[in-house]
Amino acid sequence: MPLKEKVDYLLKAGYLLTLESDEPERGWAVAVKGALIHDLGPYPEMALKYDPAMETGGEHKLLMPGFVNTHTHAPMVYLRGIADDLPLKDWLEKHIWPLEAKWLGPEFVEDATRLACLEMMRAGITTFCDMYFYGESAARSVKELGMRAVIAAGIVDFPTRVARTCEEYLARAEDFIRNFLKDELTRPAIAPHSVYTCGPESLKKAVGLAEKYNIIIPIHVSETRWELEESNRLYGQTTIKFLEKLGVLSKRIVAAHCVWVDDDEIDILARREVGVSHCIESNLKLASGIAPVPKMLARGVKVTFGTDGAASNNDLNIMGEIATSAKVHKALSEDPTVLPSRTAIKMATLWGAEALGLGGKTGSIKKGKAADLIMLDLDKPRLTPMYNAWSHLVYAALPSDVESVMVNGKLLMHERKVLAADEQAILARAREWAARISG
Amino acid sequence: MPLKEKVDYLLKAGYLLTLESDEPERGWAVAVKGALIHDLGPYPEMALKYDPAMETGGEHKLLMPGFVNTHTHAPMVYLRGIADDLPLKDWLEKHIWPLEAKWLGPEFVEDATRLACLEMMRAGITTFCDMYFYGESAARSVKELGMRAVIAAGIVDFPTRVARTCEEYLARAEDFIRNFLKDELTRPAIAPHSVYTCGPESLKKAVGLAEKYNIIIPIHVSETRWELEESNRLYGQTTIKFLEKLGVLSKRIVAAHCVWVDDDEIDILARREVGVSHCIESNLKLASGIAPVPKMLARGVKVTFGTDGAASNNDLNIMGEIATSAKVHKALSEDPTVLPSRTAIKMATLWGAEALGLGGKTGSIKKGKAADLIMLDLDKPRLTPMYNAWSHLVYAALPSDVESVMVNGKLLMHERKVLAADEQAILARAREWAARISG
Repeated sequence: MPLKEKVDYLLKAGYLLTLESDEPERGWAVAVKGALIHDLGPYPEMALKYDPAMETGGEHKLLMPGFVNTHTHAPMVYLRGIADDLPLKDWLEKHIWPLEAKWLGPEFVEDATRLACLEMMRAGITTFCDMYFYGESAARSVKELGMRAVIAAGIVDFPTRVARTCEEYLARAEDFIRNFLKDELTRPAIAPHSVYTCGPESLKKAVGLAEKYNIIIPIHVSETRWELEESNRLYGQTTIKFLEKLGVLSKRIVAAHCVWVDDDEIDILARREVGVSHCIESNLKLASGIAPVPKMLARGVKVTFGTDGAASNNDLNIMGEIATSAKVHKALSEDPTVLPSRTAIKMATLWGAEALGLGGKTGSIKKGKAADLIMLDLDKPRLTPMYNAWSHLVYAALPSDVESVMVNGKLLMHERKVLAADEQAILARAREWAARISG
Repeated sequence: MPLKEKVDYLLKAGYLLTLESDEPERGWAVAVKGALIHDLGPYPEMALKYDPAMETGGEHKLLMPGFVNTHTHAPMVYLRGIADDLPLKDWLEKHIWPLEAKWLGPEFVEDATRLACLEMMRAGITTFCDMYFYGESAARSVKELGMRAVIAAGIVDFPTRVARTCEEYLARAEDFIRNFLKDELTRPAIAPHSVYTCGPESLKKAVGLAEKYNIIIPIHVSETRWELEESNRLYGQTTIKFLEKLGVLSKRIVAAHCVWVDDDEIDILARREVGVSHCIESNLKLASGIAPVPKMLARGVKVTFGTDGAASNNDLNIMGEIATSAKVHKALSEDPTVLPSRTAIKMATLWGAEALGLGGKTGSIKKGKAADLIMLDLDKPRLTPMYNAWSHLVYAALPSDVESVMVNGKLLMHERKVLAADEQAILARAREWAARISG
C-alpha cells in the first residue's frame, strides 16, 4: 500500500463550488499544501491519497473561493454611521471631508484598515481592492491580518495632507509601487480619483506609471448625475467618452460605479475590456442611481461587486451587494430571470479576481491557484432545506454563515474565531479613535 | 434600607431603543416580571430597586422591541430555493402550486412552521402575521416555540385540499377563530386571499366574520401589474377602488404588497387607515415592481414590513427588508433623506404591532406591555465604532447580531442558543421532508 502524501489541510464539503464548473460537486474535498490548492476530488479518493495535518468540514458545509471586493476605501470604517440619510453634497462637504481633513494620517489608516480587514474576513472576503491614501500603512495591516489586497495609491490634483501637487502624489505613488511590486499578498495599484479631481495630464501620467509597472488602475467613473454634468462641462463629453478619447481605457481599469452610462459607453467598456465595480448599496443609499448592469452583462462587460467605503454603505459585505443586486435588477428590468444566482456568484469571485489582474492566482478552486477559500455552515434554519446551493448563497446566506476563511493557505478564521489577530484589541482601538473623532 | 422587589429579569443595555422616544437611552435597564415589562430606567436605579432572578446584558448591548413581520406564509420555508429566477407565472403554475397541491396538509404546516419560527426567532422577529391554511397546525408550532403570531385562515373561491366551497372555507375559518379567540400568543385572523381569488360575496362574508369577532383581515392587494389588469377586467376598477366601493376597507385590513397603486388609491389607504405590509424583497425578486412607500408615508399611510413566504424571498428576515427598503427608496426618489433610519425601525416594530391590532400589547418598550424584546451584541467589527444606533440597525446590523430573544416574558433564545426547541430535530425533519419533496 502506497504511503499517503502529506498535505496541510483536507477541507471536506457537502457542497463544493469551484467556480470552474456550473454545478456544485457533492461530497468532495480540497487538499491544501503550503499556499496552494494541491488537489481536489471526491472525498473518499482524497482521504486515501492524502495525510493532512488538519482535516475539517463535513456534510453540511459549503466550500467556495473567497469573495472579491473590487472597490472600497477600507479606512472609512472609522466613519461608519457618523452621518447618514443626507444629500451627497452635504454628506461629503459638511461631514466626511472635514473629518478626513482633521483625522486622516498613517496611524488612522493603519488602525482603521485592521478593523476593515476583520469585518471583511468575517464576511468571507479574501481579496479586496482599496483606494485611499497612506498605502504603506494599509499594507502593514493587511499583511498582519493575512488578507490579500490590491492597494491603490490615490492621485488628485489638489493639495491634501498627503501631498501638495500632482507630481508629489505621483512620486509618492511610485515609491509605494516599487516597494510592493513583488509582494505576494499586497499588490500595488495607482488610482487617479476621477475625471473631476484629476485633469488629463495627471490621468495620463498615472496610466503611464501603471503601464511601466504592469499594475491596475482603479478609478471612480460616472457615479452621479452631477459627475456626468461636470464631465460635460469640463470636457464637452461624458466621463467614459473622455477617457476613451484620452486613450487610457484598457483591461487595467477598474471603473467603480458606472451608474450614468449610455449604450455607446457600455459598448466602449466592453470593447476596451474595462472591469466595472458595481457598488449598488452605496449608490442606492446616497441616491446616486442604479447602474444598468443587465445591459452591461448582455454586452459582455466584466461586472464585479464593490462595497465602497463603510461611511457610505455602511458595511463591507459583498454577500449583501450580491443579494441586493440580484433582486433590484430583476425589478428594474421587470424580468425575474435577470442576474441569475450563478452569474451573481461568479461576478463576486472569479470575475472580481480577473478584474483585479489576479485571475491566474485566485477567484476559483483549481489546482495550483492560491488557497483563498471560505467554508460556510449550512446547518441552520435559514439555509434548510437545501435544494440549490447557488440560490441559497445569493438569496438566503449571510456573512455569519462563513465559518472558516483561508488566504494563501493560511487559516485566518476558524469556527468564527479570528486566528489572525487580537480582535478585542482592534475593537478597543476603534472605540478610542471614535471617542476622539466625535469629540 | 428597603427590601428589593423580586423580578424575573433585569436586562441591561448600553443602548436602549424604547421606540417611545426618539433618542436611545444610554446605560438603562428593563425589569421584566412575568409576561410584562415591569419597569425601565437608568441601570443604577434599577439595580437598587430590583432583585432579578437573572440579570444579563451589558455596555455593548442594544435592547429593543422585537421585529414584527406583518406578512408571511411561514410553512413555505420547506419550498425555499426549490425554484428561483423564473417568471412569476411559471414559478407559481409550474412549481409552487403543483408542489403545494401534492404536499400541503396539517403535518406539513406543523413541521414547516416550527422551522419558520426558528428562523424568525434567530432574526429577532417576535411577532408575525401568517396567511396560509391549517391554522390549528401552525398555531400548535407557534405555541410550542413561544412566538407571538396572528394566524389567518385563508379563504379562496376554488377548491383545494383544505375545502371545496367558499362556505366550507368560511365555516372552517370560524371554527378556528372561536378556538383561538382568547389565546394570548396566537391570535386568529381571516384572510381572503385577494380580489382575483375571492369574489365580492366571499370578501363581504370574510369581512363580516372579522367584524363579528373583532379580528384583522390580511389580504394581498395590487401585488403585480397582472393583478391590476385582472381587477380592471373583472370589476372595471383597480383593486383598492373596488375594495373601497365594496365598503370593506378599514383599520382591520393589512394589505400586503400595494405595489401598483396610484395617488388616489394612496389617499384611500390613508383615509381608511389601512395597514400596508411592504414586502420589497419578494417584489424585487419576482420582478413585481416597487411600492411607492415614500409617497404613502408622506400621506400618513401606516407602512410596515413583511417578508412574504421564503419560497419567493428567500428568507424570513425583517432586518433585510428594512435595509433594502431604506436604500432602494432613496435611489428611486433621487433623495437620500427619504426613509431615514429611525422611521424604518418604527415601521418594523411599533407600526407593525399597531397594524396587526397589537399596538397596546407589543411593538415598543413601555411599562405594562408584554416583554417582547431582543438584545443585540454590538461588540463586533461590523458594528464598531458606534456613532448612531438607528443607523447601525438599518445599514449594518444583521440577524446574527441578535443574541437574545424574549416573547411574553419568556427567554426563547439566549447567547444565540435556542432554548425553546430542539433545533437539530427540527432541521432533521426539514431534511426528511425535502428529500420526499425533491423525490
